[in-house]
Amino acid sequence: MSSASPSGEDKLIARFFGPIATDPGALGLSDDAAFIKPPPGTEMVLKTDAIVGGIHFFAEDPADAVAQKALRVNLSDLAAKGARPLGFLVSLALPKGIGDDWLSAFASGLREDAATYKCPLFGGDTVRSPGPIMVSVATFGSVPEGRMVRRAGAKAGDHVFVTGTIGDAALGLKLRHGAPSSEDWPLDEKQREHLLSRYMLPRPRSAMAQAVLDYASASMDVSDGLAGDLAKLCRVSKVAAEIDAARVPLSDAAQAAIAHDGSLIEPALTGGDDFEILCTVPPANIDRFRVAAMMARTAITDIGVIGDGEGAVFRGRDGIAMSFAHASFSHF
Amino acid sequence: MSSASPSGEDKLIARFFGPIATDPGALGLSDDAAFIKPPPGTEMVLKTDAIVGGIHFFAEDPADAVAQKALRVNLSDLAAKGARPLGFLVSLALPKGIGDDWLSAFASGLREDAATYKCPLFGGDTVRSPGPIMVSVATFGSVPEGRMVRRAGAKAGDHVFVTGTIGDAALGLKLRHGAPSSEDWPLDEKQREHLLSRYMLPRPRSAMAQAVLDYASASMDVSDGLAGDLAKLCRVSKVAAEIDAARVPLSDAAQAAIAHDGSLIEPALTGGDDFEILCTVPPANIDRFRVAAMMARTAITDIGVIGDGEGAVFRGRDGIAMSFAHASFSHF
Repeated sequence: MSSASPSGEDKLIARFFGPIATDPGALGLSDDAAFIKPPPGTEMVLKTDAIVGGIHFFAEDPADAVAQKALRVNLSDLAAKGARPLGFLVSLALPKGIGDDWLSAFASGLREDAATYKCPLFGGDTVRSPGPIMVSVATFGSVPEGRMVRRAGAKAGDHVFVTGTIGDAALGLKLRHGAPSSEDWPLDEKQREHLLSRYMLPRPRSAMAQAVLDYASASMDVSDGLAGDLAKLCRVSKVAAEIDAARVPLSDAAQAAIAHDGSLIEPALTGGDDFEILCTVPPANIDRFRVAAMMARTAITDIGVIGDGEGAVFRGRDGIAMSFAHASFSHF
Repeated sequence: MSSASPSGEDKLIARFFGPIATDPGALGLSDDAAFIKPPPGTEMVLKTDAIVGGIHFFAEDPADAVAQKALRVNLSDLAAKGARPLGFLVSLALPKGIGDDWLSAFASGLREDAATYKCPLFGGDTVRSPGPIMVSVATFGSVPEGRMVRRAGAKAGDHVFVTGTIGDAALGLKLRHGAPSSEDWPLDEKQREHLLSRYMLPRPRSAMAQAVLDYASASMDVSDGLAGDLAKLCRVSKVAAEIDAARVPLSDAAQAAIAHDGSLIEPALTGGDDFEILCTVPPANIDRFRVAAMMARTAITDIGVIGDGEGAVFRGRDGIAMSFAHASFSHF
């Protein structure tokens, strides 16, 4: 007789992940699949991004932070597209030796973020792997029909905005790696902590989704470095961008590091993992965009302007175009 | 100045995966996300499943077969839920040393299946990994609103049906592993090939989705072994099942192997990777279900009946309940 008691995998799912599957369509993860109906008048925005131990996070990072990073890198894309989160699926590959403590912390991080971002779990798959931990998340959100904000759409005359600050995560990664010069950076403990935490745990700009939807002509999140991501936006929009590098918003910590070693401006502008929103706003929308950002309690900065042509130029204080060895992060 | 030319990853995506992204909502993979609107009156069915090299497939398996297995294990779930495929997202983790030849074959397998199953690509993520190849697919399909066929729903008196044949993949995996006894199995080359190919490449029963939707009271795909999966279906349906083991459909090849070594009936019934549909059909629907299966050119077999109680009993020719060491495959 086949046992009427659940298998190890089913127990694991029910115990750790069931409580995150709060939508009725998830059927408490008791089925093979889930169902969802986007709200009337909306369509669904789809995105998947994976993170791998040793590549996108450190194997020793806390499990709750790993879970949150995996979800948040996807939520960042939804926000940049003007979409409201509806839910997510997660695939988890676990090496032997990952036990209940790790899984419990992972699920608890996921549960916390699912509640914070109103993005419940709809299903998942947990597999053993001889390799490192890998977490692949697929998120879906909603936008009013036909309104997903694209990379394409920037027009000459639009202003270029970024949320928050740029470069913290790239500098945080240098600190984390113990880069040779980083011990000399004149940072206090709080500043070091700021840079390190910005690398470990993205803060998706979900609060800005409505403002982007209402006022941006083009938008994307900054995940592979501001310079390279802006170049991508310009390429599909078939426009050029002129950026005043001095206006790119930097945290106290990043400013202190760059004041000490000017060459750090390059990783700050090209290093990636910012998970801020980069968008273009037509002049007629700028005042309303600023008000909407204020209501969303999100700092935004006007860093330059879109023109005809191609490519994204960053000009230093001297007015000379900066050149970067690698404008954008790519594993390939 | 930031380069106006695409990064390595963008080139890779455009070259290999762009041609599979045939839906307008995928924007040719030129954006960070895609959009989709389920057809009017439908809702979306969501599923994710991952496969890992060395666990779910062999590292030396052809890349096109790996791609197709990753997609098909998900399509199998959609079919069992009565859903029509709408599209998929894919996350791909690649070790160093995977080059353009492998990727080209992988994409070509994916492209072929996306066309066959009318399931276009909506987006993906490609990451480097120090571990084995891992492919995580998230599929979405459509069903008429409120009609996804669940595991729960089987009622006393319903008949239990399976599509196709059971146990081929589990025996194929034993052949592939070179299990000690397998050299003695009295199989001809075609029979060996049949078992091996059933392990390597699932054949999702997409043609049966409409019949399941119209006539089944409960349904799931058989991925972790018939005995264990039926026990799961009974558990959430709060019913029992009485199965006549002699009626479980076996291929010529599986019959030959089991005739030679009777103990192979256990892996056949519990081993997993069948990717057939297991469903229950109320007596009043059985005739129409049979006709619909015939129209879908899919063999179905009535293997037993649902009753009150709990658990799934498989009875041998002697009428005695069989007992299995492991009713169901679980990595945990």
